[in-house]
Amino acid sequence: MLIVPERDIADLMTRAAAFEAVEQVFAAMASKDAYNFPVVREAIGHEDALYGFKGGFDRAGLTLGLKAGGYWPNNLEKRGLINHQSTVFLFDPDTGMVRAMVGGNLLTALRTAAASSVSIKHLARKDAKVLGMIGAGHQATFQLRAALEQRDFEKVIGWNYHPEMLPNIATVAEEAGVPFEAVDLEGMREADVIVSITSAFAPSLLADHVSEGTHVACMGTDTKGKQEVEARLLAKATVFTDEVAQSISIGEAQHAVAEGLIRAEDVAELGAVINGTHPGRSSDDQITLFDGTGVGLQDLAVAASVVDLAVEKGVAIEVDF
Amino acid sequence: MLIVPERDIADLMTRAAAFEAVEQVFAAMASKDAYNFPVVREAIGHEDALYGFKGGFDRAGLTLGLKAGGYWPNNLEKRGLINHQSTVFLFDPDTGMVRAMVGGNLLTALRTAAASSVSIKHLARKDAKVLGMIGAGHQATFQLRAALEQRDFEKVIGWNYHPEMLPNIATVAEEAGVPFEAVDLEGMREADVIVSITSAFAPSLLADHVSEGTHVACMGTDTKGKQEVEARLLAKATVFTDEVAQSISIGEAQHAVAEGLIRAEDVAELGAVINGTHPGRSSDDQITLFDGTGVGLQDLAVAASVVDLAVEKGVAIEVDF
Repeated sequence: MLIVPERDIADLMTRAAAFEAVEQVFAAMASKDAYNFPVVREAIGHEDALYGFKGGFDRAGLTLGLKAGGYWPNNLEKRGLINHQSTVFLFDPDTGMVRAMVGGNLLTALRTAAASSVSIKHLARKDAKVLGMIGAGHQATFQLRAALEQRDFEKVIGWNYHPEMLPNIATVAEEAGVPFEAVDLEGMREADVIVSITSAFAPSLLADHVSEGTHVACMGTDTKGKQEVEARLLAKATVFTDEVAQSISIGEAQHAVAEGLIRAEDVAELGAVINGTHPGRSSDDQITLFDGTGVGLQDLAVAASVVDLAVEKGVAIEVDF
Repeated sequence: MLIVPERDIADLMTRAAAFEAVEQVFAAMASKDAYNFPVVREAIGHEDALYGFKGGFDRAGLTLGLKAGGYWPNNLEKRGLINHQSTVFLFDPDTGMVRAMVGGNLLTALRTAAASSVSIKHLARKDAKVLGMIGAGHQATFQLRAALEQRDFEKVIGWNYHPEMLPNIATVAEEAGVPFEAVDLEGMREADVIVSITSAFAPSLLADHVSEGTHVACMGTDTKGKQEVEARLLAKATVFTDEVAQSISIGEAQHAVAEGLIRAEDVAELGAVINGTHPGRSSDDQITLFDGTGVGLQDLAVAASVVDLAVEKGVAIEVDF
C-alpha cells in the first residue's frame, strides 16, 4: 500500500489537479456512477472534538474509501496543531484491500476551493469582471485563489464580519494582480460572482445585495443551523448543489426548503450541468447559486489524484501491508 | 504513526490478549465509558461487495477509530485472497491524528471468538462438561479453541448443516485433548454450553434442543433476516448481548422481539455482568443466551492491544506521517 503524508501534499497537489478531480466526480455523481455513503459525525465527549467518516464509491473512477477525522478545537492553543485533522483511506474496489493512506488536511482546503471554482466555470457569466468575497479566514484564501482562475476578473471586493481580517484575502488578490476593495454588504451588488465562505449561523448576504446575473457560491454551510445567505435569495435564484440530499438537510438550502420557499425538486446537481443534461445558466440576468455542502467523494477524488502524482514523482511511501 | 500488517498479527496476538481486550471493552460499554458509532454498510454494486465502517470511542481505554472493509465474495475464487477484508485505523483522541493502521482479518476472527468465550466465563455453569458446536466453518475453529479454555470440558459435540465439514472442529477438539462426537440437533440436549456460529437465515437449534442450565452463545447473526436459533429459545432464556440496539435490530434477538416474545428491556448487556451491576446467571437450571452481534469497539480494542504488543516486540513499522 502507498502512503502520502500531509507534508508532501503541498508540493504534489495543484489547483488544476484538484479542479479536474472535483469536476469529474461531480459529473460521476450526477450520472449515478458515484455515490456518497451516510455520513457519521459524532461529538465524542473528549477534547470537545467532532469526529466521523465520509465515505463513498466512484464506479467510474474506481475510487472507494473514506475520509476520517474531524475538528479538535483545542489543538492549536494546546499543541500547536491545526484544529481540522483528517486522513483519507483509499481501498481497492476489486478486493477490499487498503490501497493508500493520504494526509487530508490541505486536500480538504483544496477540494472545497475547487468546488466553488467548478461552479464558477459552469454557472457564472463568461464576462464576469467583479468577484465578491464574503469571509476572509484561512479557507477564504483558497477559495479566492481558485476562483480567480476561472474568469478575467478585474476587481475583488470583500466583506467580513471581522473587517480586520480582510488583508488575508486582499493579499491574495493583489498577488494575482487584481485590485482589492473592502465593501459593505450593499456593495456586493457590484459583484458578478460572489463566494461566501464563513461559518455563520445567520445570513449576512441578503437577496437585495445580489444583482441580476450574478453567480453565488455558498461554501460554508455544512451543518444543521448554519446559514450564510437569506433564504429568499434561493427563491430568486436557480439553485445547484453537489448533493441534493445534503443541500436540503445540512446545506444552505435547508432554510429555504424549511420555509417553503423552494422544494427539493428545485435544487439541481452541478454535475448535471457538467454532463450537459441540465442547461445550467439560461440567461444573462438569471441569478445562479451553488450550495457547496462538501461530500466524501470530493475527498476521495483529490486523494486518488495526489496518489497518482506521488507515484509519478516517486515520492509515495510504499509499505508492504 | 505505526503500522502492523496482517502477516504479523498471528505471531503477535494471543487468545488471552484478545479475551482481555474484549472483556474490558464490554465492561466499558456497559458503564457508558465506551460507545459505538452508527454502522455504515453498503452494497457498492461492484464485485458483489459489501463495504463499510464500524467505529467507536472508548473513553476509558482512550481508543478511537474504525474498522473499514467488508466482504468480497469473489476474492478467493478469482484472486486467491480471503473474502473478508478489513483494516483497523486508530486515531489519537487528544488530537484527531491517525495513530495506527492494523490488519483486521485475523483480529476479526479472534475478537469474535473472544466474545463467546467472555460470555462463557461469565454466564456458563462452573461445572460445564459438554461443549456443543453448531457450525463447522473456518470461524467455528476459532470459537471452539477459545471456548475450550473457559471450562474443564470433557467432550465436544458438533452439528453442521454440511456434516462433511465436521472434521474441521473435530481436529481442534482432539488437538486440545478433548474427544469429539458428531450429533444430530436433538443430541445438543447433552450440552452444557452451546456455541452457534453459522450464517443461516433460518433457525437450526430449537428451544427443545436445549436443556435447562445451558449457556448458549449465538455468534452468527449480524444482519437483518439472519437467524440461528428458534425465537422461542430467547423467551425461555435470560438474554445478554454486546449491544442491545444491535441485538434487537440485526442480532439474534430481532426475531423474538418482532414476534413479541421478548422486549428490548429483557436483553441485558454482558458488560453489566462483568461490571457486577447485573447478577448474571442466578441458578443452575436457568438457560442463559448471549447474542454476539459484533461491534466496532471490539475491533478497536484488539487492534490497540496488538499495537502495544508490536511496539513491545519492536516489530511495529513506524512511518513519519
